[in-house]
Amino acid sequence: MVRPIRPALLNDRLMLTLPTYLDVAAAAERIAGKAHKTPVMTSRTADEELGAKIFFKCENFQRMGAFKFRGAMNALSQFDDKQRRGGVVAFSSGNHAQAIALSAKLLGMPATIVMPLDAPAVKIAATKGYGGNVVMYDRYTVDREQIGRELAEKHGMTLIPPYDHPHVIAGQGTAVKELIEEVGELDALFVCLGGGGLLAGSALAARQLSPHCKIYGVEPRAGNDGQQSFRSGSIVHIDTPATIADGAQTQHLGQHTFPIIQRDVDDIFTATDTELVACMRFFAERMKMVVEPTGCLAFAAARAMPDMLKGKRVGVIISGGNVDIQRFGQFLTGD
Amino acid sequence: MVRPIRPALLNDRLMLTLPTYLDVAAAAERIAGKAHKTPVMTSRTADEELGAKIFFKCENFQRMGAFKFRGAMNALSQFDDKQRRGGVVAFSSGNHAQAIALSAKLLGMPATIVMPLDAPAVKIAATKGYGGNVVMYDRYTVDREQIGRELAEKHGMTLIPPYDHPHVIAGQGTAVKELIEEVGELDALFVCLGGGGLLAGSALAARQLSPHCKIYGVEPRAGNDGQQSFRSGSIVHIDTPATIADGAQTQHLGQHTFPIIQRDVDDIFTATDTELVACMRFFAERMKMVVEPTGCLAFAAARAMPDMLKGKRVGVIISGGNVDIQRFGQFLTGD
Repeated sequence: MVRPIRPALLNDRLMLTLPTYLDVAAAAERIAGKAHKTPVMTSRTADEELGAKIFFKCENFQRMGAFKFRGAMNALSQFDDKQRRGGVVAFSSGNHAQAIALSAKLLGMPATIVMPLDAPAVKIAATKGYGGNVVMYDRYTVDREQIGRELAEKHGMTLIPPYDHPHVIAGQGTAVKELIEEVGELDALFVCLGGGGLLAGSALAARQLSPHCKIYGVEPRAGNDGQQSFRSGSIVHIDTPATIADGAQTQHLGQHTFPIIQRDVDDIFTATDTELVACMRFFAERMKMVVEPTGCLAFAAARAMPDMLKGKRVGVIISGGNVDIQRFGQFLTGD
Repeated sequence: MVRPIRPALLNDRLMLTLPTYLDVAAAAERIAGKAHKTPVMTSRTADEELGAKIFFKCENFQRMGAFKFRGAMNALSQFDDKQRRGGVVAFSSGNHAQAIALSAKLLGMPATIVMPLDAPAVKIAATKGYGGNVVMYDRYTVDREQIGRELAEKHGMTLIPPYDHPHVIAGQGTAVKELIEEVGELDALFVCLGGGGLLAGSALAARQLSPHCKIYGVEPRAGNDGQQSFRSGSIVHIDTPATIADGAQTQHLGQHTFPIIQRDVDDIFTATDTELVACMRFFAERMKMVVEPTGCLAFAAARAMPDMLKGKRVGVIISGGNVDIQRFGQFLTGD
């Protein structure tokens, strides 16, 4: 069954045009041959545990180790000549930083990355390794968006935010497009949630390609602003939450992501750090994969509701695998 | 270029008929749809480190987590009705045990596995999990082959050894067949080496499908019986070596594997436990994969000779990912 593509939704308050499935499809063509078509993995053990058929879309095997490359490459590919010369600036707790740095390098433009002082060492090193110019800040005292905006104005750089941008959202949606095109329609889809770029993009793809699929966002229990926003109907801001899911330590949804999530997502669940560690161990032991804490959110929520999923075809997005390897070892040993 | 298939070689002393590439091709058809066609992964970081193009054939994503499923399934699929009723018996330090247990379960026959007392807990548990009847023994004091033979005679079971069997060798060769068919001809191929089943099968496949490819075996430095045998021209027996590469703690090559290795392999190298740990960290950090110590042997040797590989197309077999996850964590943290 083909569902008519939903028209672009106008965010009344801000007069923003939100992306549609057509933008996801265009992004897929734009990043083809640049982003990896990541493997879909299955696990007999996971299927038996949940009594369901689980399809894991493994963005930990994406370039630079996370789905973020999709959105960054889609956004930077649409820069005009002047923007390319000025380069890109981004603020990010990690994976978006590497994604922008690598995309900029591949497209031959300068990149400046504004990163929090407590970002994982492996992500800072990787960002510099991709040639990004890194500027550090204290995420607990300084507003990163303001720093980014100042750099953009002063040096003629174009700011690409980590999630609140239609090109970023459209790019992130290509992972679920690939997943459904490979395995067919799904009954349920679990996607992790920080600022909502991946979730909004995934929802655009899933609503079009698998219209009856239930779409669930999953965020850290310590920072459930997305769940609060979804259930209250307006964007809730929180303090930076303390969680091992460093990719989901966002304080609020975006002006672009929230209305799409409100319209297309069925519910938002949460997972505890303890559940994330259990998932990390499962992925390592049974599926031989390294998954970062944020990348475990979606499966952690799915595991918590086996009754609801019995007999279903379930998509689970593994968002990334960039975790400091010392720390990962400690998660496995329980130290 | 197509190279004429080498005729079966008759092992004069024992009058054994050795497998040929035709047996590998037949095995591939026999296990199709049962074994996974595992992914071939690449890593920009590995390529830059070695100045080469490396193709990692990821048998850690094979069913039960190692290449051993290929040989076991190929052997058990050829049982006649009487053999199926009697079931299979196997002796194994780990992965062969799980491979036999899972293959037997899938084919609906009983399996008895003779395992050493110091086998990794994860492998014992997995073998039992696949429905195998596990019998333990002390590998430092008792001859496992004798136990296996006694069980076979007493209960009408058919013994399938972990490597010294033409059907096992032919099955293991299917991984390299898939690799070369997917990525094209190679300049060099690195394969780990315990009893030589994977190396012999790989050599049969590579000699046929990529005739100019240099074929290298790699074994633990602490137990280099394969290297000694290869260089001296006759099978050398050693004591059980102390190494973290528990899948390669064999004491000697097989009557079937040695003549194939002697004929088709170009050299045998060794790797230290320290080098294996460094590779485990590399695979986890850069490629987001869990690889067991034995599975690191091939890449460890390739990394030690970058000058030789510059500009080459290199195949590296990752043999498996079954490592106790606590222990794996300790390898990562250095504890």
